[in-house]
Amino acid sequence: MRVIVDVMSGDNAPGEILKGTVEAAAETNASFILVGNEEEINTLAAENGYDLRRFDIIHTDTVITMEDDPLSVVRAKKDSSMGLGLRLLSEGRGDVFVSAGNTGALFTGASLIVRRIRGVRRAAIGTLLPTAAPCLLLDSGANVTVNAEDLSEFAVMGSAYMRKVAGIEDPTVGLLNNGVEEHKGTPLQIEANALLAKTPDIHYVGNVEGNAAAFGACHVLVTDGFTGNVFLKSAEGIGKLLLHAVKDVFLKNAVTKLSALLVRRSFADLKRTFDPAEHGGAPFLGISKPVVKAHGSSDARAFKNAIAAAVSYAESDVIYEIATATERHRALLAEMQNEAQRGVENADAAEKKEGEQA
Amino acid sequence: MRVIVDVMSGDNAPGEILKGTVEAAAETNASFILVGNEEEINTLAAENGYDLRRFDIIHTDTVITMEDDPLSVVRAKKDSSMGLGLRLLSEGRGDVFVSAGNTGALFTGASLIVRRIRGVRRAAIGTLLPTAAPCLLLDSGANVTVNAEDLSEFAVMGSAYMRKVAGIEDPTVGLLNNGVEEHKGTPLQIEANALLAKTPDIHYVGNVEGNAAAFGACHVLVTDGFTGNVFLKSAEGIGKLLLHAVKDVFLKNAVTKLSALLVRRSFADLKRTFDPAEHGGAPFLGISKPVVKAHGSSDARAFKNAIAAAVSYAESDVIYEIATATERHRALLAEMQNEAQRGVENADAAEKKEGEQA
Repeated sequence: MRVIVDVMSGDNAPGEILKGTVEAAAETNASFILVGNEEEINTLAAENGYDLRRFDIIHTDTVITMEDDPLSVVRAKKDSSMGLGLRLLSEGRGDVFVSAGNTGALFTGASLIVRRIRGVRRAAIGTLLPTAAPCLLLDSGANVTVNAEDLSEFAVMGSAYMRKVAGIEDPTVGLLNNGVEEHKGTPLQIEANALLAKTPDIHYVGNVEGNAAAFGACHVLVTDGFTGNVFLKSAEGIGKLLLHAVKDVFLKNAVTKLSALLVRRSFADLKRTFDPAEHGGAPFLGISKPVVKAHGSSDARAFKNAIAAAVSYAESDVIYEIATATERHRALLAEMQNEAQRGVENADAAEKKEGEQA
Repeated sequence: MRVIVDVMSGDNAPGEILKGTVEAAAETNASFILVGNEEEINTLAAENGYDLRRFDIIHTDTVITMEDDPLSVVRAKKDSSMGLGLRLLSEGRGDVFVSAGNTGALFTGASLIVRRIRGVRRAAIGTLLPTAAPCLLLDSGANVTVNAEDLSEFAVMGSAYMRKVAGIEDPTVGLLNNGVEEHKGTPLQIEANALLAKTPDIHYVGNVEGNAAAFGACHVLVTDGFTGNVFLKSAEGIGKLLLHAVKDVFLKNAVTKLSALLVRRSFADLKRTFDPAEHGGAPFLGISKPVVKAHGSSDARAFKNAIAAAVSYAESDVIYEIATATERHRALLAEMQNEAQRGVENADAAEKKEGEQA
């Protein structure tokens, strides 16, 4: 297993990224390809006493920033740490690529350099929610507008991921909606809910409201990337606000400060559970090789978590599973459409015949 | 000031609704019209020693349930506590109506019985978020699909409300989006962002992401009702999940239980701040008379809060303000469209002339 790491991208790159990678290396047999500024990497290693013997370094001076156009990864900055890393992955020089950089550029690069699995309509970004039971939100922001068939394919891909990587035997699927009833949502949700209910090979449980999703309503929560992003950011905002408020309670006076001392360790754990940076690894699904997005604000621990997620992704045969499941899915959808078409034609023919007899 | 109360609707009706109303009455000069089952109301009053002298009771046996079709309020159940209350409001027998019942039915009834302000395109549901600064989310779920002009009008109505009822002199307006840049969002957000930037009489600050909204990015956050609902429910879900987790931390062992004792009161306050039931009053904006929706799970305290919100709404001249502001808004939008049209015609004419001269 060879893990390719974009050392230069992210709010805390390269220091925390390299530190997290070195820490991850201590816990796995994988070897690593570090893409980034060789001099900076060697200086950091010397300063911190990192042993880089299991690390290959591929040098580049260029970095894609958060402000760069997503297409820069295949144009002006194709030799950036991100562009180069994706090329190494596509050429088979490593098994998985991890980056904490610009999400749009990483998604564009993954789609154009590594490419989608043949036939897959749209790749998507999965995010494991810090919910009561493991829940993968799909799509988290890559595809702002989608149609019902896309959502049905997301359900198939997400189910494969939760089965093969998260080890859930029969993952349930829900559609993020503003109510549980069949008539709820925009025309997209109404159509998607009907299609998901007929989609073979998934365990569909119906429409799921945002508050129910937090309490284990399903293992895979499908939605368009716009709504997915709003959902995630809303949760992130209210989570941060609440944790601030909790901190304020503890800082109130001497008695509450004493109380804080008593629960300090448990609260640190709690904070980590709800910190999006901790759930470092957002897998891209539908890409022909595993690409994992670490949170932009990743520190060493979060990046280490992202690498762990990446190794699990690469060790599983989920990409093969997605390829076969989506192929079967497309064939079944086509058959359903043909049947519907034949139904219309038969009805037309019957009507015509009636007309002739009349 | 006469407040009309739907005593029979909501998860904890009629007991908590009546209790909350009696408590509200003790703190205001308003008089009350209670719509509901007279016998049940009198029994509750006798049992609890409520003095109903300032209360008129209008009897009805019928209640709209959460499962009832929204249109039932004007059809099979038009004599329900909700339908009757809305009719009393529309006939001028009271100044404001408060109900903890079925949101869809209340919105439908408000639109069809009380009616929209003349010319207003769509009424909307406002929700005051438990954010760092007061922020009104509009629309919270009434209009699943909207267009850019609707969002622009929501901005005008929300600004009027925050000015007149929340006392914010120059309320800022943001558009809920998946990024701050101009090109972010679906075609709806891209068009709405451009239109809001040109909308006169509002203080538009641009696209606002879900996490920024929690930290006072704007006073009025406009969005379609589908996204608004997902945003609210996501925040509600993660908030509940976090508060559960905090509770678990305190229940861990004898030491943490001691800690819990020390901060119990402060935590109860915190929990209330983030409890949606506490922010009882969601005003309907664009309706010709004030209608306020209390949270379905309202207890007495939450319903009392909803009545307080309703009294503030009714005492302000916000409906007059919305009527004049939206009228001016429509005229300005029409003028902008005419100008754009003239621009196109002038360009066409110029092109034609050039063609003739060539």
